[in-house]
Amino acid sequence: MEEERLVTQITPKSEDFSRWYLDLIRRTELADYAPMKGMMVIRPYGYAIWENIQRSLDERIKATGHVNAYFPLFIPESFLRKEMEHLQGFAPEVAWVTHGGADELEERLAVRPTSEAIIGFMYSKWVKSWRDLPVLINQWANVVRWEKVTRPFLRTTEFLWQEGHTAHENYDEAQTETLRILDLYREFVETELAIPVISGRKTDREKFAGALATYAIEALMSDGKALQMGTSHNLGQHFAQVFNIRFEDRGQNLQYVWQTSWGVSTRLIGALVMAHGDDSGLVFPPRVAPLQVVIIPISIGNWKENVLPAAIELKNRLERSGLRVFLDDRGEYTPGWKFSEWEMRGVPLRLEIGPRDVKNNQTIAVRRDRQEKSVIGLEGLEEKVKGLLDSIQISLFNKALAFQRENTRQVSSYEEFKSVIENKRGFIQAGWCGSEECEARIKEETMATIRVIPLSEESNQKGRCVFCQKEARTMAVFARSY
Amino acid sequence: MEEERLVTQITPKSEDFSRWYLDLIRRTELADYAPMKGMMVIRPYGYAIWENIQRSLDERIKATGHVNAYFPLFIPESFLRKEMEHLQGFAPEVAWVTHGGADELEERLAVRPTSEAIIGFMYSKWVKSWRDLPVLINQWANVVRWEKVTRPFLRTTEFLWQEGHTAHENYDEAQTETLRILDLYREFVETELAIPVISGRKTDREKFAGALATYAIEALMSDGKALQMGTSHNLGQHFAQVFNIRFEDRGQNLQYVWQTSWGVSTRLIGALVMAHGDDSGLVFPPRVAPLQVVIIPISIGNWKENVLPAAIELKNRLERSGLRVFLDDRGEYTPGWKFSEWEMRGVPLRLEIGPRDVKNNQTIAVRRDRQEKSVIGLEGLEEKVKGLLDSIQISLFNKALAFQRENTRQVSSYEEFKSVIENKRGFIQAGWCGSEECEARIKEETMATIRVIPLSEESNQKGRCVFCQKEARTMAVFARSY
Repeated sequence: MEEERLVTQITPKSEDFSRWYLDLIRRTELADYAPMKGMMVIRPYGYAIWENIQRSLDERIKATGHVNAYFPLFIPESFLRKEMEHLQGFAPEVAWVTHGGADELEERLAVRPTSEAIIGFMYSKWVKSWRDLPVLINQWANVVRWEKVTRPFLRTTEFLWQEGHTAHENYDEAQTETLRILDLYREFVETELAIPVISGRKTDREKFAGALATYAIEALMSDGKALQMGTSHNLGQHFAQVFNIRFEDRGQNLQYVWQTSWGVSTRLIGALVMAHGDDSGLVFPPRVAPLQVVIIPISIGNWKENVLPAAIELKNRLERSGLRVFLDDRGEYTPGWKFSEWEMRGVPLRLEIGPRDVKNNQTIAVRRDRQEKSVIGLEGLEEKVKGLLDSIQISLFNKALAFQRENTRQVSSYEEFKSVIENKRGFIQAGWCGSEECEARIKEETMATIRVIPLSEESNQKGRCVFCQKEARTMAVFARSY
Repeated sequence: MEEERLVTQITPKSEDFSRWYLDLIRRTELADYAPMKGMMVIRPYGYAIWENIQRSLDERIKATGHVNAYFPLFIPESFLRKEMEHLQGFAPEVAWVTHGGADELEERLAVRPTSEAIIGFMYSKWVKSWRDLPVLINQWANVVRWEKVTRPFLRTTEFLWQEGHTAHENYDEAQTETLRILDLYREFVETELAIPVISGRKTDREKFAGALATYAIEALMSDGKALQMGTSHNLGQHFAQVFNIRFEDRGQNLQYVWQTSWGVSTRLIGALVMAHGDDSGLVFPPRVAPLQVVIIPISIGNWKENVLPAAIELKNRLERSGLRVFLDDRGEYTPGWKFSEWEMRGVPLRLEIGPRDVKNNQTIAVRRDRQEKSVIGLEGLEEKVKGLLDSIQISLFNKALAFQRENTRQVSSYEEFKSVIENKRGFIQAGWCGSEECEARIKEETMATIRVIPLSEESNQKGRCVFCQKEARTMAVFARSY
């Protein structure tokens, strides 16, 4: 009864995916709408995920030799104007500061939509010689893009991200860095978020404003739409020329540096919701879950004497072993209510403990992913729980991978392409002649875009272009996307 | 010779403290000026300190039951207007966003100078019952205050900080929280930054715009000026009334919540420089130092075969034991150059290793704080190095404490007060009648302000007011400040 009541508070996923997503985020207190259009508040339960993401991604970024720094929030308009392609890419989305206190500023300041311009300027002061290279800097920051259509986590006016900005001696090093980070992102997302991705290059139409080439990892959400999870750009010498970032090379000649930039954002939290969630609510992979285990004492009889002490002992043992645990000992809610509440909030493992369990020196473990119950003895509890969490992590990844494979299709005609996109969605692998016109027409007619040209496919010929039937230059992965 | 050349790159502290501070920050790459007035870039060497501060402060904030969240960067003008005292306090310093892309906004948005207004609005949506209290939320964020006079780290247009915002059932709980955090800050600054502070209450003139009472920790920099290191505000029901944050209390009556807010910022990095630095440069306490140990191989003969492998082994051993270590194996610089470079950069401990040391299974340790050399055998190296670092940490704190004590004076007349402030600076403990007029006149005539009324002195009578000679209501601590 209580479970039923709870579940009706969120629209079932199967009924209206978009409504389900919005309901769930607010009901589980991951985030709330701010009173300004397109802005949100990341509440503690959602922010804890971001902290977990930051910790494990930052570790990887540092392990590959990068260091963190912090650059200003504001960028003078003239800096953005120096690189017209870049300005045109971002101008419609820039929030402009025009006044400081009561005074009008002489020059408008952009609230950073991304930091290539200001960082390029600073690098021109810092880099003099090949000995100063490579520069391998990352920053964790907020950025603002004035988006027309917004959705919590996926596209908001302000979001949090990390942006790496590196400078190198030559093209090869920059390209190696670009692909190293792309693969670091892939490994991170697959290992920590349990979401399989496709890595590849963006088309010129979809690339970053000012980049030589943009690479991305793309994942399939459980409604069959694609989500760009992270990007890594080879910027070439574009910004170096604009901001005059030059160094004396090993042969004592002045050269422009070669740069990269790359980022992932709080969008990843939205991806977790959409990739793993189900009709009962959120399903978090243990490695990034805000809470990994919830303990629910069965509150019957004088449970505060009979059960609660054992529940507290459970909690202490698991916390000491490094797990994120919550003991829900609230008296005002029934165990049944708590079961569905914490299911909805996506906690990977629930431990129930009642008077009989205390007597038998055991607890009932219930996995969120499969709703499977098992009785576990308290001896060696920590290792058993960790084993279950590892198993849940792997199982979520495998489920998402199976879904991605089932929903990645090859088509033999444009008719079939249209039908798949309309009825089944998912990824479509199809030949593409390389022309922007075919790409644009496909988007117009089907709302599907080229998500990536997979790395391994760049040099392969793949039959005919799915749109114009001319010889294909490459195989491309198409999908509708967020 | 080389040392001399290096040290001349920074103005000696004894000659011009302010110039020394600015030279040092740029020369050691803690920070650089950004091209926009009053803004700076925190470079990797400086940002590493902020990361260490964040890690150890965040741990303390969480251990006292707080959780992190993230609120929007922008605050609608009407929100700030709702609380006039608050608006008037911050209006001259607000950066205003007026355009999003090409469109003028209907309402101007403030770039947050602090977040009470937006957080108050959100809390009014989240808090319904006493069961929702206390709310114990902290955020790590950037804020912007359009300052006229700026100085890197101490006062910049944009800075990084944490701001805690809590809501409670009654005054007592809010007051307890306010003082708990004040003491958490004191313990944190004294333990981690090795800087002794005085804790106390601000006068009404100096309190936060909109607060019932502001408490602060104040430290003495080595030029005898005071620096406010952190503040903790009891906001009373002020913002609760303005933003209508009400809850049903245990007796089922609607009540306004009682709030607190508190913060420390990247200013603390400036404090580290000014409290511990000397003519040779930075001196960092080991617990927050970007690097704790620098290893310098003595590069004579074929050192790459004879010495470098042992230096690498040193580095690996220390890193494995959890220390932050840098091995300076650059061939283009002499050991002498490296010694003064890393002295200037404030690394607490230098380990030198040459061919004879390799033979004798030893290394030469040089403490930055006392320039003391000692020979240490490689057996049990990790524990010996940690012991030295602990000793440096304590020694820096004790030195700063002795300095603070020597420079905290009691005066018997206003003439003596003026003479001390002019010639010796430091803290002055003196009686104060409690009138704003005396406080204002003292500031006008001496540039000294009441830094705090020490907690223990609030209820004590302390002779006569140093200015008007009427009966003193309290003892106050005066100083010139940053």
